[in-house]
Amino acid sequence: MDGGVVAISGGIGGAKLALGLYRVLPKETLTVIVNCGDDFDHLGLRICPDIDTTLYTLGGLANTELGWGRRDETWSFMETLGALGGETWFRLGDRDLALHAERTRRLAAGESLSALIADIAGRFRIRAAIVPMSDEPVRTRVQTSEGELAFQDYFVRRRCAPQVSAIRFEGAARARPSAPAAAALAAHPAALILCPSNPYLSVDPILSVPGLRDLIRGCGAPVIAVSPLVGGDAVKGPTGKIMRELGVPLTAAAIARHYQGLLDGFVVDERDPDPGDLGCPVHVTNTLMKSLEDREELAREVLQFATRIGTGR
Amino acid sequence: MDGGVVAISGGIGGAKLALGLYRVLPKETLTVIVNCGDDFDHLGLRICPDIDTTLYTLGGLANTELGWGRRDETWSFMETLGALGGETWFRLGDRDLALHAERTRRLAAGESLSALIADIAGRFRIRAAIVPMSDEPVRTRVQTSEGELAFQDYFVRRRCAPQVSAIRFEGAARARPSAPAAAALAAHPAALILCPSNPYLSVDPILSVPGLRDLIRGCGAPVIAVSPLVGGDAVKGPTGKIMRELGVPLTAAAIARHYQGLLDGFVVDERDPDPGDLGCPVHVTNTLMKSLEDREELAREVLQFATRIGTGR
Repeated sequence: MDGGVVAISGGIGGAKLALGLYRVLPKETLTVIVNCGDDFDHLGLRICPDIDTTLYTLGGLANTELGWGRRDETWSFMETLGALGGETWFRLGDRDLALHAERTRRLAAGESLSALIADIAGRFRIRAAIVPMSDEPVRTRVQTSEGELAFQDYFVRRRCAPQVSAIRFEGAARARPSAPAAAALAAHPAALILCPSNPYLSVDPILSVPGLRDLIRGCGAPVIAVSPLVGGDAVKGPTGKIMRELGVPLTAAAIARHYQGLLDGFVVDERDPDPGDLGCPVHVTNTLMKSLEDREELAREVLQFATRIGTGR
Repeated sequence: MDGGVVAISGGIGGAKLALGLYRVLPKETLTVIVNCGDDFDHLGLRICPDIDTTLYTLGGLANTELGWGRRDETWSFMETLGALGGETWFRLGDRDLALHAERTRRLAAGESLSALIADIAGRFRIRAAIVPMSDEPVRTRVQTSEGELAFQDYFVRRRCAPQVSAIRFEGAARARPSAPAAAALAAHPAALILCPSNPYLSVDPILSVPGLRDLIRGCGAPVIAVSPLVGGDAVKGPTGKIMRELGVPLTAAAIARHYQGLLDGFVVDERDPDPGDLGCPVHVTNTLMKSLEDREELAREVLQFATRIGTGR
């Protein structure tokens, strides 16, 4: 594939495909634009869960037993914090904590999140670009049956239990695409992949940054979304629950409609019913990424699909 | 001994005698007023080294191998922070870090340092009162051959290498004695012990808090200082080096003169030369506290000395 590939991704689900892309592409040609709507300040630290998941995943540092956080992790901090009566609902490993502390210090010293993450990625020997959607704060807030909740309050503390009625992205109006995100989209990429992340909680915050949607539409590359649904439900996480609560049918077609005006191609899992005419080419395949091979295979198929669409235009 | 005992203490050296007092007295009758001039903000966290040393020491949580910090400590945070290019000159164990994080959160929420430390001491099942000298920030600053340095810059980062010409206590003018410190001194204690801490760096910050010196003088108890010198030099730490640099003779007599107007009795190590007439009774004994028994024995002797002086008045 000539030219770069830009992936748009949230946390764990999206990072699986990002890792597949990273492994099958020349590494330097991949840019992953990551959701920052989940970022929050906790215990005085700036925490960026999706960015860090992407860093750990592409850096080979992910905790594959837990499915989140860092490998070779220890938990002395959390254990002691609990004994002190502190807030332990958000689990912070000792190693993970170091990244948050270092980020907090450098952001306070005036460094941009983009520059900081680029430096950390380099230290993790990651050769792809991992870039925040914006250097300005955008915070996902969830309107629920228990009132409006900050994202992590909803997602971690309340474990997605409250019923969702709406989602908004605080600060989005004043945010701009981060410089490396804008640069990657302006550099005539060969493909743009919307990873199988939660469309409402992970991809929408990215698309809420003024100018980013236009940069995607104008980037010249075929825009391919991978449906996060497998067999009519989300593999993991609250996507299915949220779609039901928002009154959206739990179908790949509804996901495609959600991305209306943006898509040149759509990848649907083979376990899903035929989505019918979505107004763009559809590729049906296995999207369930259990093994590393699954991730690579899906990445290859998505890239080939993008190439076919790009050539056909 | 009838009535409470108030100890005035810095970190490691002073906490040894505080532990001795804690073990030989009815535990609830001891109040330790601790230096906060070493407190600082680092990696966004409020760190109170002398308070924490006292908490860990009296709580049976001190790291006896290292001689500082917490026992059963792990170092994943520091190790990872180093790999990220972060600041590792101040060593923070994973468990120790939890105390700093919890303190930072609660201070930011408006709790006083006194109230917070009382709560933590309770969680550590410490039955003595460990109280900060003040709830307002007082910061020790050291004038050196390399310019003025914040205390931890001088003490830890530069390992006391620069030559000291003066020491000041920033914020002291606006500080007040903490409520529990003032209350303990107003409650007619039976003895007041100046622990063998560094007079310049550990005890002077406490005495710099306006009103505290008068509360000590007016508390009615015999005031006994234990010299930090053993055999004509400090057991550990920069006391000797600083006295030389400030042009003060390295003698117990000079320490006693430093506390002039405050002392009713002075305890000198048996390895030291005869201090001569200090204008107050002198007790000569072993002040080198290697074992737990040494700590208890010195505590007993100091309390007996105080009783003799109190009875004689």
